[in-house]
Amino acid sequence: MITQAGLDAMDRDDPLAPFRDEFVLPDGVIYLDGNSLGALPRATPGRLAAVVEREWGTGLIRSWNDAGWIGLPARLGDEIGRLVGAPEGTVIAADSTSVNLFKLLSAALRLRLGRRVIVSEAGNFPTDLYIAEGLAALLGQGHELRTAAAGEVAGALGPDVAVVMLTHVDYRTGAMHDMAAITAAAHAAGALVLWDLAHSAGAVPVDLLGADADFAVGCGYKFLNGGPGAPAFLYVAGRLQEAARYPITGWLGHADPFAFDPGYRAAPGIGGAVVGTPSVLAMAALEVGVDIALRAPMAEVRAKSLRQAALLMDLVAQHCPGTGVEPVTPGQEDRRGSQVSFRHPEAYAVMQALIAQGVIGDFRTPDLMRFGITPLTLRYADLWDVAVAMGGVLASGAWREARFGVRNRVT
Amino acid sequence: MITQAGLDAMDRDDPLAPFRDEFVLPDGVIYLDGNSLGALPRATPGRLAAVVEREWGTGLIRSWNDAGWIGLPARLGDEIGRLVGAPEGTVIAADSTSVNLFKLLSAALRLRLGRRVIVSEAGNFPTDLYIAEGLAALLGQGHELRTAAAGEVAGALGPDVAVVMLTHVDYRTGAMHDMAAITAAAHAAGALVLWDLAHSAGAVPVDLLGADADFAVGCGYKFLNGGPGAPAFLYVAGRLQEAARYPITGWLGHADPFAFDPGYRAAPGIGGAVVGTPSVLAMAALEVGVDIALRAPMAEVRAKSLRQAALLMDLVAQHCPGTGVEPVTPGQEDRRGSQVSFRHPEAYAVMQALIAQGVIGDFRTPDLMRFGITPLTLRYADLWDVAVAMGGVLASGAWREARFGVRNRVT
Repeated sequence: MITQAGLDAMDRDDPLAPFRDEFVLPDGVIYLDGNSLGALPRATPGRLAAVVEREWGTGLIRSWNDAGWIGLPARLGDEIGRLVGAPEGTVIAADSTSVNLFKLLSAALRLRLGRRVIVSEAGNFPTDLYIAEGLAALLGQGHELRTAAAGEVAGALGPDVAVVMLTHVDYRTGAMHDMAAITAAAHAAGALVLWDLAHSAGAVPVDLLGADADFAVGCGYKFLNGGPGAPAFLYVAGRLQEAARYPITGWLGHADPFAFDPGYRAAPGIGGAVVGTPSVLAMAALEVGVDIALRAPMAEVRAKSLRQAALLMDLVAQHCPGTGVEPVTPGQEDRRGSQVSFRHPEAYAVMQALIAQGVIGDFRTPDLMRFGITPLTLRYADLWDVAVAMGGVLASGAWREARFGVRNRVT
Repeated sequence: MITQAGLDAMDRDDPLAPFRDEFVLPDGVIYLDGNSLGALPRATPGRLAAVVEREWGTGLIRSWNDAGWIGLPARLGDEIGRLVGAPEGTVIAADSTSVNLFKLLSAALRLRLGRRVIVSEAGNFPTDLYIAEGLAALLGQGHELRTAAAGEVAGALGPDVAVVMLTHVDYRTGAMHDMAAITAAAHAAGALVLWDLAHSAGAVPVDLLGADADFAVGCGYKFLNGGPGAPAFLYVAGRLQEAARYPITGWLGHADPFAFDPGYRAAPGIGGAVVGTPSVLAMAALEVGVDIALRAPMAEVRAKSLRQAALLMDLVAQHCPGTGVEPVTPGQEDRRGSQVSFRHPEAYAVMQALIAQGVIGDFRTPDLMRFGITPLTLRYADLWDVAVAMGGVLASGAWREARFGVRNRVT
C-alpha cells in the first residue's frame, strides 16, 4: 500500500528535486504532458531576450559571426549528441522531425540502391509512415513502405529491404524497442536502420554508437524542453557520412556557402545534412533546455522515471478499482520509455475532466490516456494526486460532460 | 547637386518617417543590410515574452488550441499573402526557403509529367540552383536543371520544360524581372513558373495573382523583419491546389492530423504543403514584422525606395569620383528591387572598412558592395553619410587593412 507519507519521503530523498526550480510550472497544475510539450525553463526568457535584444537588435547581421549563429546547428547538435550516445560531428539540430526523416530515409535508400523497401511498424507515429509513403511515391520506381506489427519487424526483413525505420519509444503505449538487437538483425539482413528518438532523447538512456545505429532523428520540444515547435535533430553514423547523399541540397549544407558557387558541393561530414538558414530564436530556446538535460545525470533520471511510472500504475490500481482503467505500458522496465498509458473506453472524456482539474496528460485515439513522466519536474507526491483525481472523475461521472469536446491536441 | 539640407527636407516631408521609431537601431550605425537580416521591431521582445511566459509557460500544451498555435502557418500565410498579391488560402508560413523550394519544384514536376527540365538563370541565388540540382539527381529519370543568362530565359523554353524558377529580384545586382511577362511566356510554352520572392516581399509591389504566377517562395528574415532564420513562406495558386502533390508528407499536412491515421491524406487547399510542427517562437517574431509591413502603404514604400536608391547612386558619384566605384543596379525604375550594388575591385575590403565605421552593407563575391534600401528605417540624411564614408575610405586607403578578414556572411 503506497501512502502519501511514503511519497513525501521519496521527494525529500530525491537527488533530482532541485531541478524542479529550474522550470516554470503554473499553480494548480500537475503537468504530465512533457512528452508532448516540455515545460518552460526559467532561464529561457532571459536567454531569448539577450539573443533578441543584444544579438539581433544591436549586433544585427554581424551576429552571424560574432555571436556564433552560423555554428548553431553543429554546436547544438553536438550537445544533443551527448544525450543520445552520439560522438561529436554526428548530430545537427535542424528543421522538423518530418523533414529530417525525409532527408535520412532518402539517404538510406541511396546507400542501398537496388533495395526499394522501407520497413516500419504499423503503429509507428503517423508522420514517420507518411514521410516514407510520400518518399516512396515521389521516387516511384517500385519503392514501397512495408509495415509489420511491433513484434514482427524482424520477419519483414529480406533482400529487398533498404532501411528499417522505427520509433524507439511508442508514442501511445510507451513500449520501448531493443535498439541494439533490432539494429543487429537489420544489419544482418543487409538493411540500414533509422531510429526516431522523439520520445527518447532526454527521457531514457540512448546509445546510438553502442547500438551501431545508422541514422536517427529526434524532437526538441518534448523531453528537451525546447519550446513549441523547437528545431528537431538528426544523426548520421560517422562511418556513413562520406557516402551519404541528402536530397534537399540547401545553401547552408554547401562546403563553402559564402562562395556562392553555382554548383552544389556538400559540406564534409554531417554538414551536408543542413539545408536552409536555421531559426536562431528557436535554436537559442532549445539550447537552454538541452543544457539542463546535460546537467541531469541520465542514470538518476531513468531510475526516477521507472520508479514514478511503476508508482503511478500501482496508485491508479489502488484508487480506481473496478473502473475499467487498464495500464497498457509494459511492466518490464527495459521495455518501456518514460510515460504511462491507460486504456479506458471513455479515455477522451476522462482526460478532459482531469485537465479541467489541472491534471494535464493527453488523449490518444481511440481509447488511451497518456501521462508523460518527466523526472526533472514531477514530484512523487504528485502521483498520489493524479490517481486520486482519476478515481474521483471515474466515480463521479464528471467526465460525461466532457465527451463532446474538441480533440485537437499536438503530440 | 544633392545637399544635406535637401536630404533633411526630404526626411521632414517623409510620410514613412514615423515607422523608424518602431525599430531598434543601434547608435552609430547606418543599417543597409535589412535585405539580409531585417532590423528588430521594438514590439518583438514583448510579443516573444508573452508567447514564452504566458502561452508556453502557463498555457503549456493547451496553447496549441487556446492560443491558436495550430493555426499559425495559415494565419501568418494569409497576412504575408496580402503583401504579395495572394488571396487568402494560397500562402502558408513554413520551413525554410530551401525546403519550400524543394516542395514546390517537386509539385511542379508532378504537374507536368513527361517534361523533366527545370529552367533557371545562371546567376540565381545558389540555394535555388542547388535545390533544383538535388531534386533532379534524386528523381534521376532524365530530370535536369538548365540555366540561361538572365535575359535569355525565354530562349531556354521548350516542350521539355516543366517549370521556370526565377528569383524576382537578383540578390547581387538588385535587378528585377518582369514577373507577368515571364510568367506569360512560360505558360505559352506549357511550363509552370516558381518565383522566389526573397528580396521582394515587403520590399517591392508584388501581384502574384495578377501575374498569374503558379508558385512562389519567400523569406521572413529580410524585408519582413522576422528575425534571424525566421520561417519562410510559400504560395500555390488556387487553381493548382487540388492537383498539387507535395513530396514531404508530414503529419501537420494531413487532412485530420489528430486522427493519427496510418495512411496519409493531404489537407485540402494549401494545407497539404505544411509538413511538421512549426516553431511557435519563430512564427510569433515573424508576425510582428509582418504586421508592421502590412501597415506601411506599399506605394509609399516603393516611392521612397526608388528615390533613396537613385539618391544613393547620385551621391556616390558625387563623393567618390575617379575611385572606380560603379553602380550595377539598373537605373530603370521598374527593373530594380530595393537595393543598390556597386562594383569595385576591392569591394570586400572597402565594405569591411565601412562596416568598421558603422555603415553596414555587405559584400557579395567577387566584387560587389551591396546596400539594402529599407524605407521604414532608412533616412534620406543617412545616404549622405554613406557616400561620404565611402569616399573617405576609398581616398584614404583605409580598406587595405581589411583585405584579409573572414568573408562569412549570411545573405
